[in-house]
Parts: sequence; structure tokens; C-alpha cells
Amino acid sequence: MYVGSADGFRLERQTEYGTPEQNAAVKEIVEAVKLEGDAALLRYTEKLDKVKLQPADLRVPQEEIEAAYDKVEPEFLAALRQAAANITAFHEKQKRTTWIDAQPDGTLLGMVLRPLRRVGLYVPGGKAAYPSSVLMNVLPAKVAGVPEIVMATPPATGGREGIDPYILVAAAEAGVTEMYRIGGAQAVAALAYGTASIPAVDKICGPGNIYVALAKRAVFGAVDIDSIAGPSEIAVLADDTADAGYIAADMLSQAEHDEMASAVLVTPSAKLAAAVEAELQRQVATLPRREIAEKSLEQYGAILTVPTLADGVAIINRLAPEHLEVITEDPLELLGGIENAGAIFLGPYSSEPVGDYFAGPNHILPTNGTARFSSPLNVDHFLKKSSLIRYSRQALLRDAAGIATLARHEGLEAHARAVEIRLEGEQS
Amino acid sequence: MYVGSADGFRLERQTEYGTPEQNAAVKEIVEAVKLEGDAALLRYTEKLDKVKLQPADLRVPQEEIEAAYDKVEPEFLAALRQAAANITAFHEKQKRTTWIDAQPDGTLLGMVLRPLRRVGLYVPGGKAAYPSSVLMNVLPAKVAGVPEIVMATPPATGGREGIDPYILVAAAEAGVTEMYRIGGAQAVAALAYGTASIPAVDKICGPGNIYVALAKRAVFGAVDIDSIAGPSEIAVLADDTADAGYIAADMLSQAEHDEMASAVLVTPSAKLAAAVEAELQRQVATLPRREIAEKSLEQYGAILTVPTLADGVAIINRLAPEHLEVITEDPLELLGGIENAGAIFLGPYSSEPVGDYFAGPNHILPTNGTARFSSPLNVDHFLKKSSLIRYSRQALLRDAAGIATLARHEGLEAHARAVEIRLEGEQS
Repeated sequence: MYVGSADGFRLERQTEYGTPEQNAAVKEIVEAVKLEGDAALLRYTEKLDKVKLQPADLRVPQEEIEAAYDKVEPEFLAALRQAAANITAFHEKQKRTTWIDAQPDGTLLGMVLRPLRRVGLYVPGGKAAYPSSVLMNVLPAKVAGVPEIVMATPPATGGREGIDPYILVAAAEAGVTEMYRIGGAQAVAALAYGTASIPAVDKICGPGNIYVALAKRAVFGAVDIDSIAGPSEIAVLADDTADAGYIAADMLSQAEHDEMASAVLVTPSAKLAAAVEAELQRQVATLPRREIAEKSLEQYGAILTVPTLADGVAIINRLAPEHLEVITEDPLELLGGIENAGAIFLGPYSSEPVGDYFAGPNHILPTNGTARFSSPLNVDHFLKKSSLIRYSRQALLRDAAGIATLARHEGLEAHARAVEIRLEGEQS
Repeated sequence: MYVGSADGFRLERQTEYGTPEQNAAVKEIVEAVKLEGDAALLRYTEKLDKVKLQPADLRVPQEEIEAAYDKVEPEFLAALRQAAANITAFHEKQKRTTWIDAQPDGTLLGMVLRPLRRVGLYVPGGKAAYPSSVLMNVLPAKVAGVPEIVMATPPATGGREGIDPYILVAAAEAGVTEMYRIGGAQAVAALAYGTASIPAVDKICGPGNIYVALAKRAVFGAVDIDSIAGPSEIAVLADDTADAGYIAADMLSQAEHDEMASAVLVTPSAKLAAAVEAELQRQVATLPRREIAEKSLEQYGAILTVPTLADGVAIINRLAPEHLEVITEDPLELLGGIENAGAIFLGPYSSEPVGDYFAGPNHILPTNGTARFSSPLNVDHFLKKSSLIRYSRQALLRDAAGIATLARHEGLEAHARAVEIRLEGEQS
């Protein structure tokens, strides 16, 4: 872990672009599924997931989804439902609708907003199958009004048969309309180009391994994709009023995710810096994922001391962290200076897991410094806009000369004539 | 030109990914500028643009911008200013601001909206240097509140010295804050990674040749980029009430752009179909860009007859055209059925060039079927969002058990403990 002045610290992690072999493998799979459809999809499922399926097996039947409800604990279902209600309520506030500005001369100008028609969500198998991520991906699409939301998840992982019932329940609760037991690059290709069994989608979301990420890059353009997430990050900006135990606990909740995760404290208080360092050591010792958390702290953890909180804000803006906690005497005072952060948690009770699971805002956030220009997953990501122009005859008469001047300057005579043909006989 | 039933028509054009040689050349340039900064930038400018510059020459001085005003016609400037005012007014209506929902228990949840800090606009040299595109790229960023808007354009094109004064005037009018005489992949790399003379930007917009497009793909991730535009398209949905001359003129205003452009009429009226075909032949004969327009119509033009207007709407949704004109007896009647179109022009006076230059909505629109999931360039493209969570003690007490249940189910013990450490001694 880096401990010291902020000047020397630079958080930089490589974006995963895969090896040439991985890229070649993905290209082969994507092309095959695009050309052959179900036949290639089933072939790669047998080869890579070691499961032999028929086309009729691809879609998860309603009975399997209903049976999953019997396998989850009532307190899990209750917590999931409350989280879903909170996430829905927060995303409802983001929703915008079509607007039209009607002008006195008869002109209408506006923006037409519509949901995407069909969205695909990839859910990885195994330990990375998080019900909370199913909610976070599906509910913004649902709030946007997307009528068809399709989930793809591997048919089996590591010898375990069937799909995790917690994932099936989360998907059903969130409002997924079709579920398919397909995984990997072949699943992404099937969603992008469609097969006889699985109609193509307009956008693919959700996390996955390197093969899934490369496949999403490969199909981008034919469909939209969400951003390709990097390892998770937290930065905490704190002063002497903060509780070192809280801060260490929050840093560890990031560090336990994976060895590439990053947890950084920025503080003007040398006393707090020392206390957090000691608390990290104390708390990490009893964690089930101790090894991962220790490796993460060792490689990407940092405690940065700064002269003032204002200097701390400047460091935060340079880091552009995925998650930012501000635990200071007056956190709202600092809000206006924070330019770059995926999610901002203010005050001592806003522990990051509150946002990961429950409060309502999305936990799918820009990583690796992209908060400089990217946003949390939100309802806008599932809407498309069309601009609307209804010009009146009067408006065209008024503007025709200006339009023709600009068109002719750009050497586009047919543009000028398209306007002028409508005025023939008007003023002569 | 394809003339006939819509069933057989499929508009498909290749997205440009470049040859292996072009990709290798771009990779070399981008890496060199990333590593060496100004030195590589000046070296490639001399090699590729045949202009030898010093670092101090890179930025266009204020005097050169002022001198450009003396070189443009007053009617050009007047038309440009009116267009800029209309574009600004339309984009102002899109603007959204930070919102916070304050809950009775002391919890605050919200979305913080902020402009990007620094945006780069690439403007190609030569015939593709369109002042109208400068306005369309810069003004949404300006309305969003982006404080630094940087333009890059080649130092000379085809033997012509210096930068087009019309481009300089358009950039100054739109509010560009810095202008640099750099072009090609080296300009994109300089904007993305920064050099001693040119600080890095957060997002790069604007059209360019294949080298510029490949460089934008290469730097994506380090910075944001806009979408990479394909050739332009228009579809016209019309019935017997439409004027065949208007429709042909509008189709030609698209076809004159380039040989890859596409103009398609969809109509239930055999009479209109025949009349438009005749008008196209008549009008194209006198166009300065006749050869380009004829080639475009031959390759990608179509007149499609459909049984009913409702069938026409279905074809339009399949095409997802960049521009759609609806010239029917009651165009607003059809609006609700149109799912996929970049810009929708309603009625006989809404000729596409009205939107290209003047009405206010953006002319940078999704091409090649991407209107299924993409939107016109708009103010949101220059804002970033952060979610805001300020949980109260009371709210944390209420939700702690649910959060811990979900976290432990996902195997993330440190997440559960980060919440529970805040409740120690609370209820015991």
C-alpha cells in the first residue's frame, strides 16, 4: 500500500484488450454464430460449457423460474424486493418524455423519446452471478419502458448443473421477459445477430469475463453495448471528524472484490491516516476474503496525505474514482468542487454498500478514470431520441435565403434547390 | 436504383474499419504522439501535411481569427449567426440540471450533472470543412457549459495554405476557445493524450477521413468519442398528396453528398412512385454534383411501393434512417408508429436542408441503422452525471439487515460488516 504525499501517486491500470489468441477465438465464435445461428450456438455451448442442448432447451421454461422461488430464503426475497422498489423509485425520477415546442408561425420543433425495443442482459455464471447486478441492469431498462428484456447466462458453471435460482428469482422480480441458458462469446453473438431461437436485441448490457468483453466490443455497431467495466474503486476524502473504523471497513468492502480493486484514503489528518492504516490491518485479519483484500491493498491501496481538504478535492478530481465517500465535518460544502466521481457518498452513514445494494442509485458506475466523461447506468441509456421538425410555409419563406446561402457556400446546390423548389411562384 | 416492392430491399453498407496497413499506420502515429508529444506531432505534420511548424505555430493566433472575418461575405455571416441562434435556442431546451430528492428521515438521493471540462472538435480540411458542422458540434457543448472547447484542423489541404476563414469564423461564432492547426491521426492522439503545447481533452467529436476515424477508435477509453458517422441517408414516406418535385429535390440533396449516400422513397402510391422517378431524372441533369448524385441513386437509391402507409411505417422502422420525411395527408397521425429515425421531418415544407442548416435541431444524427439505439448529438453528450447518496442514521438502521442479507448472499462479508460497524452499540 502506498502511504504518503499525494504528489507521487498515480492510479493507472491497464484496460483489458485480451491476448491475440483470445481475440482470434472470439472472432471465430462471433462469425460462426452470425453465419450459422443456432447450430454454431449449440456447438460452442457443448464445446465450451460442456452441455449438450437442443434448440428447445435454450429458453428457460416458466416452471423452472417458479421452482427457483422455492429455493431462496424468505429474508433474501424480502430484501431483494425492497432493493428493487428503491431502485425503481430512484430511476423513475430520471425519466423524461417527448417534448414539442410549438411556435406561433405553425412550426413544431422537438425531441421524441422512445425506449429501445429489445435489450439483452448478460449474467456471468459462478461466483460473479450477483442478483444485485441483475436488478441494477434490468430496472433502468424497465423504467425506460423497454418491452423485451432478455437474459443470457451460462447453462452450467464449474460442474454445477443449471442456473442459480437466486439469479432466476432476481431476473423474474426485475421483469426480465425471456431467459436463455447460453454463455460466453457465443451468447453475445446470438443476442447481437439473432438466431432462429433467439431474436436479435438492440443493446447488450452486463458484465462478463474477457471473452464476453471482447465479444461485446466485436458486435458493437450492429448493436449498442454498455461500457466495459474495469476493476472496482473507492476513494474516501475525510478529515479529523471521521471514524477510522468506518473508513477501513468501507475500503475493505472495495478491496474484497478482487485483487485489481483499489481503495484510497485522501486526508489532511496525519492522525486519521495512521488510525485507518491500523484499522485496515486489524479488520482485514478476520475477513473470509482476506487474501484478495490484502493483495488489492498491497497493489492498489493508498493513504494519501494532503495539506488541506481543497487539495484533497483536487486529487479526487484527478483520480475520478468510481465511488467517492466524503466523511468530513461539512460534506455538502465540498460537493460543488467535486467534478469527477461515479457516485458520491456523503457523511458517516453513507457506507458504500448502501449504494451497492439498496438506496436506489445504480451500482453500475464508470471505472478507471472514465468518470471524467461517463455516467452511472441510468434510464437515458435505454431511451433513444429522434429530433422532430415540422416547418411551416411561413417559416420556410422567412429562412429560405439563409439556408440557401449556407448550402451554396458548402457547394451543396441540391440542398439549396430543395428549399427553393417549394417557393416557386411564391414571390414572383 | 431499386424500384419495386419493399420485400426485396435491404439497405446494408459496410462500416469502415480500415485496411491492416491503415490500422498499423494509425497505431504507429498514436503511440508516437502519446510517448513523444509535440516532437512526434510536428514530425507527422511535416511528413503527412507537408507543413513544417514550431510548437509556437500550433495555436491559431487571435489576429488570424479576426482577419478571417474580413474574408467572409456579410450575408454568409448573417445566415451563420441566425443558424447559431436557432441551434442554441433548441439545445437550451434540452438542458437538465442537478436534482436532489430530500427524504423526511434526512436522506438525500440525487443526480449531480456537470459539463465535461474540455472537449476537442476535429474539423477536416478541404471540401469536407463545413461551417454548419462546426456549429452543430460546438453549440451543444457550449450550451452544456463546457468551459474549454478546442478545435483541431489540418494546417493546409491540397496545396492550399492556411485554414479556411469560413471555418475560423464559424468556430469563433460558436465559441471555440482554442484552435490548433493540426490534422489526421496525430491531431486525435494529441487531443487524447495531451502534449506540452496542447492539454488533453475529455472527449473528441467531429468527422474525418478513415485515419481520423481509426485514431478515434484507438484512443477511445482514454477519452470519450462521439459515434463514427457512416454515409448519409434519407427515407421519404409519402402518399398521393405529396409533390413529386419536392420529394425528388430532397432525395437529391442527400444523394449529392457522396456516392455512398442513400435516398429511399416509400409510398403506397404507384402514381407518386412513377412521378418521383421521372422528377429525379429531370432534376439530377442540371446539378453541379450530378455524377455523385447519379452514382448514389444507382447504388443505394430506391423507390419502394407498399400496400398501405402502415406497411410503409414498418419498412421505415426496419431501415431506421438517419433522416425521415413524412409527406402525407396527416403526418402527425403516423408519428406515434415511427420507432427508429434520427430526425423526423413532417409535412411539405420541412425539407431536409431546413434541418441540416437552420431550424435548430442537430444535423449530427445516427446513420446506418443505428437510430434503433442511438440519438442525435445533444446536450447530454457533453454532461456527465454522478449519483449522490447521503444516508441518514435512521435510514441505515432501517435498512442494515436487508443490505447485510444481500451482501452475505453474494459472499461479500466486508460489505455487510461496513454497514454493521456503524450500528455497533446502537441496539444492544
